Amino acid sequence: MYDLIIVGGGPAGLTAGIYAQRALLKVILLEREMIGGQIALSDVIENYPGFPSISGMDLMQKFEEHARGFGLEIKMANVENISVTDDAKVLKTSEGELRTKAVIIATGAKPRKLGVPGEKELTGKGVSYCATCDGPFFRNQTIVVVGGGDTAVKEAVYLSKIAAKVYLVHRRDKLRAEKILQEKAINSDKIEILWSHVLLEIKGENGVDAAVVKNLKTEEETTLDVHGAFIFVGINPTTDFVDVEKDDGRFIISNPKMETSVPGIFVAGDCRNTPLLQVSTAVGDGATAAFIAENYIDGLE
Amino acid sequence: MYDLIIVGGGPAGLTAGIYAQRALLKVILLEREMIGGQIALSDVIENYPGFPSISGMDLMQKFEEHARGFGLEIKMANVENISVTDDAKVLKTSEGELRTKAVIIATGAKPRKLGVPGEKELTGKGVSYCATCDGPFFRNQTIVVVGGGDTAVKEAVYLSKIAAKVYLVHRRDKLRAEKILQEKAINSDKIEILWSHVLLEIKGENGVDAAVVKNLKTEEETTLDVHGAFIFVGINPTTDFVDVEKDDGRFIISNPKMETSVPGIFVAGDCRNTPLLQVSTAVGDGATAAFIAENYIDGLE
Repeated sequence: MYDLIIVGGGPAGLTAGIYAQRALLKVILLEREMIGGQIALSDVIENYPGFPSISGMDLMQKFEEHARGFGLEIKMANVENISVTDDAKVLKTSEGELRTKAVIIATGAKPRKLGVPGEKELTGKGVSYCATCDGPFFRNQTIVVVGGGDTAVKEAVYLSKIAAKVYLVHRRDKLRAEKILQEKAINSDKIEILWSHVLLEIKGENGVDAAVVKNLKTEEETTLDVHGAFIFVGINPTTDFVDVEKDDGRFIISNPKMETSVPGIFVAGDCRNTPLLQVSTAVGDGATAAFIAENYIDGLE
Repeated sequence: MYDLIIVGGGPAGLTAGIYAQRALLKVILLEREMIGGQIALSDVIENYPGFPSISGMDLMQKFEEHARGFGLEIKMANVENISVTDDAKVLKTSEGELRTKAVIIATGAKPRKLGVPGEKELTGKGVSYCATCDGPFFRNQTIVVVGGGDTAVKEAVYLSKIAAKVYLVHRRDKLRAEKILQEKAINSDKIEILWSHVLLEIKGENGVDAAVVKNLKTEEETTLDVHGAFIFVGINPTTDFVDVEKDDGRFIISNPKMETSVPGIFVAGDCRNTPLLQVSTAVGDGATAAFIAENYIDGLE
């Protein structure tokens, strides 16, 4: 029987691990894919205070070392569901059943798909959701980026350094991204912003040959001669395995103490209904969740 | 006219500065005493993820360099009051009047001092006001905790799991804390409650060696052989200069977006009504406050 199981090994989960370990809880962290989570895929992060410029991978390695330095046990396992009994939460995992007094859900979120023809078929063959992973394959080629938020614009700017040309397809007539990013995209001579456009289809056999876009104002369709398509149109939280109250986007609803609708189940980071998905906020969430979980565990005795 | 004025140069304020500067806001940060705030007084901090062990001063220097690296302007000034006009917030400061569209209050909070000899000299060297921060440094040692409210008793129980022995010094003959906490303290074989006692002096050179306590009923003085002294006799947030909704302890009340009761006045960090006062949480608050403030400023145009 654990005091606390942390589900997810990104910034929120690793921070919760540091705090829980320092509070001498009997704790384990479960991660199903890769320590570090989505941020480990980021080429550069410049807004986690203390590190003016660092790769997501390097930063997460520091977090992991920090947590392991305090003795945090980390296990690779997928949590299939969580059931609540009178005296425990029972986690059914790919590595067997685990029992615990409290749980912190820190499973993060994953990129959303557009759902257009060709997208699924060509994923990994020219369609990508990760510029850091796949950008280098498109050196001196022409690519299309879809989206208008921080991630889309940031990655368009990053990709423009590698590719010959980047079309940035955005459904509105202005960007939602940070001003500093907007300016970079607008001032880049390698980025062409297609305002008020949507992507209709990605074409190709074993790779991307073209992308069909439509101007929402004129209804005009254009075929872009591109060899890659990067899609940044939102994210899906990884929350299906746990039965707590969620919002319309399936992000877990919590109060400021990171308590969910189920006593003893806490939440932290990007899978939470939070105004901002950042390493900075995930770290704050993780610290709070571990602290409040500790209070909860104490109160059980 | 500024877009944003950040009041306070601790972790919350500097993080807000990084985010605001990246968002290309016209921003200035005002600090009245010392960049870094309370945490700069900490000898060692081990729970800000990414830095397994660093002095508070060094960490805050990194935060400051990070913020200045993005061009953040920092000015030494005391804010005396903030008035709200139709189109601006007007800050009356020791360096003159400043006008801005939005304000982030990140002025922090200071632990109440006992005012006994040795307390000030040994702060950060064995005298602490934060169990979560400093408890783990006292593994298997004997410490004294001063106070009788919820925080003091809760932290005494927490510290008793780490330390070899905890003296809990309380000036009355019963505790004010929640019953469940009282019972834990009273039943713990590692906690000895010194009823009707006060702390007179903390002794030591570069660390705590002893604490002198006095029994208020018998007037008898005793020297305790301790290596740490934790003082929990209240926390004062620095919030008197601003007229927004506050709780009974004068901490500023906010929603999860860091909005206060006054539109355009945001709050972040320890001066906020928050469950946890940590660098990790201040950083999360600061990022959120700057992000939401930017949305607010954008919305004014």
